[in-house]
This record gives sequence, structure tokens and C-alpha cells, in this order.
Amino acid sequence: MSLKIYNSLTNQKEEFEPMEKDLVKIYSCGQTIYDDMHVGNAKTYAAWDILNRYLSWKGYEVFHVMNITDVGHLTDDADRGEDKVEKAAREKHLEPMELVTEQVRKWYREMDELNMKRHNVIPRATGHMIEMIEAVKEIINNGFAYEENGSVYFDVEKFNEEHGYPKLGGRTLDHLETGAGGRVSEEELEEKRSPYDFALWIKADSSHIMKWPSPWSIGYPGWHLECSVMGIKYLGKKFDFHTGGVDHIFPHHPNERAQNIAIKDMDEEPINYWIHSEHITVEGEKMSKSKGNFYTVADLLNEFEPEVIRTFFASIHYRSQSDFSFRSLVESRKKLERFQNTLRNIEEREGGNDVDLEEDIPWIKDEFQKAMDNDLNTPLAMSKLLEFCNKVNKNLNNEKPILEEAKQTLVELLGVLGIDIKKEKKTKNIEAESHIDLLLEIREKLREKGEYELADHIRENLKKSGISVEDSEEGPTWYVS
Amino acid sequence: MSLKIYNSLTNQKEEFEPMEKDLVKIYSCGQTIYDDMHVGNAKTYAAWDILNRYLSWKGYEVFHVMNITDVGHLTDDADRGEDKVEKAAREKHLEPMELVTEQVRKWYREMDELNMKRHNVIPRATGHMIEMIEAVKEIINNGFAYEENGSVYFDVEKFNEEHGYPKLGGRTLDHLETGAGGRVSEEELEEKRSPYDFALWIKADSSHIMKWPSPWSIGYPGWHLECSVMGIKYLGKKFDFHTGGVDHIFPHHPNERAQNIAIKDMDEEPINYWIHSEHITVEGEKMSKSKGNFYTVADLLNEFEPEVIRTFFASIHYRSQSDFSFRSLVESRKKLERFQNTLRNIEEREGGNDVDLEEDIPWIKDEFQKAMDNDLNTPLAMSKLLEFCNKVNKNLNNEKPILEEAKQTLVELLGVLGIDIKKEKKTKNIEAESHIDLLLEIREKLREKGEYELADHIRENLKKSGISVEDSEEGPTWYVS
Repeated sequence: MSLKIYNSLTNQKEEFEPMEKDLVKIYSCGQTIYDDMHVGNAKTYAAWDILNRYLSWKGYEVFHVMNITDVGHLTDDADRGEDKVEKAAREKHLEPMELVTEQVRKWYREMDELNMKRHNVIPRATGHMIEMIEAVKEIINNGFAYEENGSVYFDVEKFNEEHGYPKLGGRTLDHLETGAGGRVSEEELEEKRSPYDFALWIKADSSHIMKWPSPWSIGYPGWHLECSVMGIKYLGKKFDFHTGGVDHIFPHHPNERAQNIAIKDMDEEPINYWIHSEHITVEGEKMSKSKGNFYTVADLLNEFEPEVIRTFFASIHYRSQSDFSFRSLVESRKKLERFQNTLRNIEEREGGNDVDLEEDIPWIKDEFQKAMDNDLNTPLAMSKLLEFCNKVNKNLNNEKPILEEAKQTLVELLGVLGIDIKKEKKTKNIEAESHIDLLLEIREKLREKGEYELADHIRENLKKSGISVEDSEEGPTWYVS
Repeated sequence: MSLKIYNSLTNQKEEFEPMEKDLVKIYSCGQTIYDDMHVGNAKTYAAWDILNRYLSWKGYEVFHVMNITDVGHLTDDADRGEDKVEKAAREKHLEPMELVTEQVRKWYREMDELNMKRHNVIPRATGHMIEMIEAVKEIINNGFAYEENGSVYFDVEKFNEEHGYPKLGGRTLDHLETGAGGRVSEEELEEKRSPYDFALWIKADSSHIMKWPSPWSIGYPGWHLECSVMGIKYLGKKFDFHTGGVDHIFPHHPNERAQNIAIKDMDEEPINYWIHSEHITVEGEKMSKSKGNFYTVADLLNEFEPEVIRTFFASIHYRSQSDFSFRSLVESRKKLERFQNTLRNIEEREGGNDVDLEEDIPWIKDEFQKAMDNDLNTPLAMSKLLEFCNKVNKNLNNEKPILEEAKQTLVELLGVLGIDIKKEKKTKNIEAESHIDLLLEIREKLREKGEYELADHIRENLKKSGISVEDSEEGPTWYVS
């Protein structure tokens, strides 16, 4: 069985074939590091984490690059405006690189907490300034860019004539309402040969902080350039997957594709599969800071275990616009608990009848693979896994080896979805609580027997450890005092 | 009162005066990221963390830069040999930047766990390639470097005539047994005008992976260059502190100082205080992988809470060669427990007599400051804090406000040493253990009373929660099964 995946380059589901046998190369557009990772970013990264894990599970070696944008992404995603990092830093009274340092550290930590498999390389734009300048030289040499007044622009019309632009999302040049570089200002129109053109190198004005010398001016790279350069550097001129959010379908990704072709002056497609993850809404609305419905990953991690969050992400299809709400996370917790309870049931082997599980293990592996092969249908895979749990729970009288195998299978397949079911933390808390409950139970029995001294001894010692016991008509309860 | 600190530039303790009123700028040599952070690295970083925290406590604003070296540090710390990152990556069958990505992520996490205050900027060498090339151009323009066969060397003798080299560690040029670039190979001697000279830019041979185009060759920067460039970029051409390990006293830091002066062609000292932290030995011997006494921070964090490790670091003076052993950490845990117990005693207000604490709070603040002002004498500060704990423990009958103030003072001053005494984790474990102990005590009493059913009920329920009880002549013990 092989993976079929929706390719934005052709606007259809296609069977995946790796360029190199057994090796898959993935480039994922990562965080522009001016702000905290929010739930929408995390949902997208989780989708590519699952792609990576699923291909690994199928036996491929995976080499996965995800960049960090720490310079060059301007506020309107176009060729003029302020650098997002510089703007955010100024608002926080920080140096741009001070903000970047803080944010990168936070981002790494949160990605770890969310159980995202570590990417092979996480390159940063500022770490590739020379490579970007060299790439601009190549594009100029190959005839697809021109310099004007210290800035360098990509010649989209000329590129379109020779190679076709853009092919992503079913658009052609005629459909472009704005230039490929986004909104075009008066000033830019003076420099650009066509409104479709976008910047490769931008001459910095004096207020700009992050700028570097180049053959054209002291300036900084256009936003699209870094991904082309870092993709080629770490994955080569041809690779399998390029992933991003739907907002990258235009203009970021077609510009990137054009650059890749122009840098290497090649006639083939540089990247075979361009795949895109849909946005998330929050309580039915577009997430935005002004609406107050903007949730960061840190907000989520304060309230929910990472496994709950990953269960939520796995419950939605990467190409579906899905809604995030407190309720959806509570439902995810319930699903997670069903998985956890099944594991616990197996360990305790209680209940059940004599129907054999032997057929159910190949069944779930097959169903899981069918779901995932169909454009990574994780919600279907999740519902099959829950069905498998029902089967297991009804068959706990089976022999230990087959139950052990059922457990391993569940752990393994949930792992492919990024859900680390084996985490101990929650269980440990439960154990500590169970000891307190046991102490209260013993205390009740002692009181029934008239052993008040020993009963009071329990209460006093719990008090010393910060646990207050209160007796009511429904029996004793305790709370942390 | 003001800080006196030992300056390697003058080989004496000097009174600290900031260049800019109320603002202190620190540059710390950080990790060459080819390998895991070890206990010696962490001890050094903890020293600069304490410097930063102490200056902040004294009311200064602190801007602290610590670099990450991800390219250019060669295996023999000199101008020939293999890049440490490339070598380690090859041994692990990784791309160099794959290793760097993994190691940076791990380093950030471990620095967080060790409660190191986040540095304002953590720049990486690969993020400053253009700046390094520009700096080499400046040094050539200012007459202190020459190109030979695609490599660029710093002219140490010429620099020495004009500015004096090196001044750190009391050495002068006559004392150099080897060149400032370390051991000098035959091949280098052909290129270098003098064995003292060191490389600013090195022409790469074909096997080298991490290399960039430059006006002189496709190559890579000399190891010393990055710190000069990143220091100037983020702190300016003059700043207060430059810190490192004693192994940086020569050749890294005098080369860096020479570069800073040569880049800016300046007549003043670029950096006022060069301070260095001594090495750590392990069980009396130099730490080395071949001896099997090499401990990483990850090893330590597996066994000890971060507060214990920070208590150990604070217990040794940064300029003393100190010994790391299991015993030293166990002793640190005892110290930490004395602090923790004092806090708990204040909360519970048990014992004590009526002597007033009012004088003891200004006393400890004064003693702490005197110790720290004397070249950051953290071991003395620690012993004064333990003395303060004794005073508090004898005076728990004081009024609540003054006890609360004593508690705040203890938390605050330990915080300056990087010890986060308020962490809850350990206490929670102790509580869980105390409940198990209580259950065993009750079980013993029940058995004495002949209540075997209830006693067995406790044992069985503990078993279910993973706690096995074993009876012996010394009484019952338990373990996690």
C-alpha cells in the first residue's frame, strides 16, 4: 500500500513516489520567530510531524528540514513595510536579536513538550546570508532578475514565459489581482518592471537595523528567498515534499518554486509534492489578537497535558478547516482516557470474555494504514483505534502474549500520530492520590471499630503533609491545604 | 559598596566601574556545540549567571551575550585540523548542521533546567558570516593582516609593536612557546610571516563541508574571529566584561582582544575586565572521556534536582580549581535541605525562642554583599546564608511579618546565586513518600492489634499502585515495583 497525498501543484491526490528509493526529503516552512507559537502554527507542525512519523513507520528514511525565519519577513508579507522581528522587538524595547534569542529558546522547548519529532536541521535565515546573496547572483546570471536602485527583483513575466508561474493552487498569472510580491506601493512600481515582480534583495533605509552589505546595496533578503536557499542547501536541488500553511499557497510558495528553478536554471520540477495545511478557527471565528481569541501553545500547555493537545490535532484532518475550543480539548481528553484505560485494563486483565484478539491486531494495522494512506486521514485512523480499544476491552481474558501484542500495537500506532500514550506523569499523580484515598478508607474502618486514636493519628499526619480531611454526610473528603 | 573583581588583563583585583552608568555589558564565550554540555561547562556558565544576577541585584541593568560556536573551532584549537562540528557529525553519521540543530535544542533545554538566566542574545557563528568577512577586510585595511594563498593571517608582531600583545595572564610575546595560533605546521609556516600569527580566514580544502565564498577563497573563519565580531555587533566597540574559561586566557582571548582593536583601529582598551573561571576536576582527576570520568549535564540532571547542582556550583569559587564528586553533590543536597527546612520551619513556626530577628536581616544582606563584592566569593556567601538559617531556626517565635521578611531575604539571596529554593517538585515527592510511610506505620499497628484483614488490605492496595512492601527484622520497607 502506498500513500496518496493531495498535491497543490497539480490540485489532485497523487500516489507518493520518493525521488530516491527508501529516502524521503521534506522541507517545512517554520516559524517567523517574532511572536509566540500559537495553536494554529502547532496544528500545522503536528501535521508534518505525523507525515514524518508515518513515512518512517512505513519504512522510509526521512530527512526533515524546518526553518526559523529571523529576518526578512515584512509586516504585510510583501516587499515593503517593516520587518516583523524588528517591529515586535521595538514594541518590547528589545534588540531584534534579543527577541529572536528568547523566542527561539521558547520555541524549541514548546516543540519538545508537544512531542514533535526533532527535525534533522532547523536552519535560521540569518545563518544563510552569504548563501542568499550567492543565490541572487545566480538568478541574475540566469536572466531572471534585475537590479534597480540597490534592490533586486525577480522577473516574473519572463519566468512565466519560460517555465510557467504560478502553478500552485490552480492560479495562473492572469488571476493575480496583485503582484506576486503582494500589494505594490508607488515607490515599488517605479523600480519594478511589472507589478508581478517580487524582491530578492531590498535596499535598507537608514532606520532598518538588520542589514548586510551585498553587491547591490546594504540591505536584506526578500522573504521568499531563504526557503529556496536553505532547501537547496540541506536537501539538494530536487526533493520530495514542501509543506506549509494554506496562506503559503500564494505568494510564498510559487515564488519559492520560481526561485528554485531560476537559481539552478533547471527544466524539471524541483519539488514533487507541495502540501498545505488548513487554518484553525477558534470558537468559530478566525483567530486574532484583537478578538481576544488568540491562544498560544504556552496557554494550552498551562491547562492540558501535551498528549491531550496531540490527540486534538490528530482528530482533525490537516486539510480541513477545524475549530479549536475548550470543548474540543475536553473531548480529546476523553478519547485519550479511552486509550489510557485500555492500556490499564490490559495491565490489570479484568473483565472480558473469550473471543480471540488474534485477528484484530492485523485488522487495526490494516485499517490504520488504509486511513493514513488516504491523504493522511488521521480522524479516521483515530476512530479505528478507538474501535480497536473496544475490541480489546471485550477480550481481556485472552492469553497474556496476545494482550501484550495488542498493547504494543496501540502504543505504536498512537505514536505514529504523535500521541505518547506511555507518559507516566498523570499516572503518578493518580498513585499519590490513591494513597490518600486508602488512608481515608482505613481511617473510616478504624472509626467503625472504635480505634479513634489510630484514626486521629492518620488525620494528624495527613495534616502535616498538607492534606486536610473533612468529614461530611457523604463520607470524608480531602483537599490540599 | 562596589564589586572588586580579578581582571586577567592586569592580573589583579580591581574595583568595577561600568563604562555606562547603571548599564553593564557582558560577553561570555559559550559552547562549541559539537558535544553535550558537561559539568565543567555548566560550572563556568553558572559563574557568569551569578555575575549577571549579582549585578542586577545591585541595581545595574545587565545586557549579556553568550555565543554558540557552530563552525570554525578546529580540533587542536589552532589554525589547522578538522572542524570540531564536522568531525563529531561524521562520527555520528550526521550532516554538520543536523548535529548542530540537535545540540542547540538540547543545550537550550539544559540551560533552562539549570535555572540559568536567559542571555539577552545567544548569537551563532554561522549567523555572522558576512560580518566576519567584513571584519577581516577592516583588519587588512588597517594594516594588521595579510593574505597568503587564499588564507588571511593576523600580523601579531606588527600588532605587538603598536598595541602590545598579549597582555592576558601576564604573558608577553617573548613567553610564547608556540605561535598565537597554537601549534604551527610546516604548511602554515610557509604561509605565515611569523609563527605567532593566527588565521582570520582559512582556505578550505575540498573535503571541508562548511565553507563560504569570500574575497580571498572559498573557506571559513578562524575560531577567534566570531567572538570579536559578535561582541562588537551586540555590545559595541567598547564594553565591560569578557568572560571565559582559563583555557581561553591564551590564545583565544588575547587574539580576540587584538582583533577588536585592529577591526576598529582604536587606541583604547576595547574591554575593561577579562575574567576567567577555573576548571573542574572529577574525583581528583582531569575530566576526560578516555578516563571514564566525564559527566554531562544530562547525566547530572538524571540524578539530581537542578537546585542541588546549583548549590554545588555556588559552593565553589569561580577561580578555584574544584573537585566534582558524587559526595560533593550529596553534601550540596544537605545544604539545600537546610535552606528548605528553614523555609518550612518559618511556614510552620515551630520551636525557637524570643530573640529578635530584626538585626539579622540587615546583617545577612550586608555579609552577603561583602562576600560577593570580594571577587564573587560565593562559598563565603553560602556559609553566611547557612549561618543566617541557624539564626532564623532559633527565632521562630518572632512575629509573622519579620519571619516573612526573613523568608523573603533567604529566597532572594539564594536566587542571586541561581538557586531556586521555592521549587515545589521535591516537596511533593516527599509528601507522597510520607503517605506510604504512614500507611506502613498504620499497618504495623493493625498487625499488633491482630487486625490482619485491614493490614493485608493496605498491603494489597499498595501493590496495585506499584508499591511492594517487604517485612524484615528491622521492620517493613517498601520499593517501587
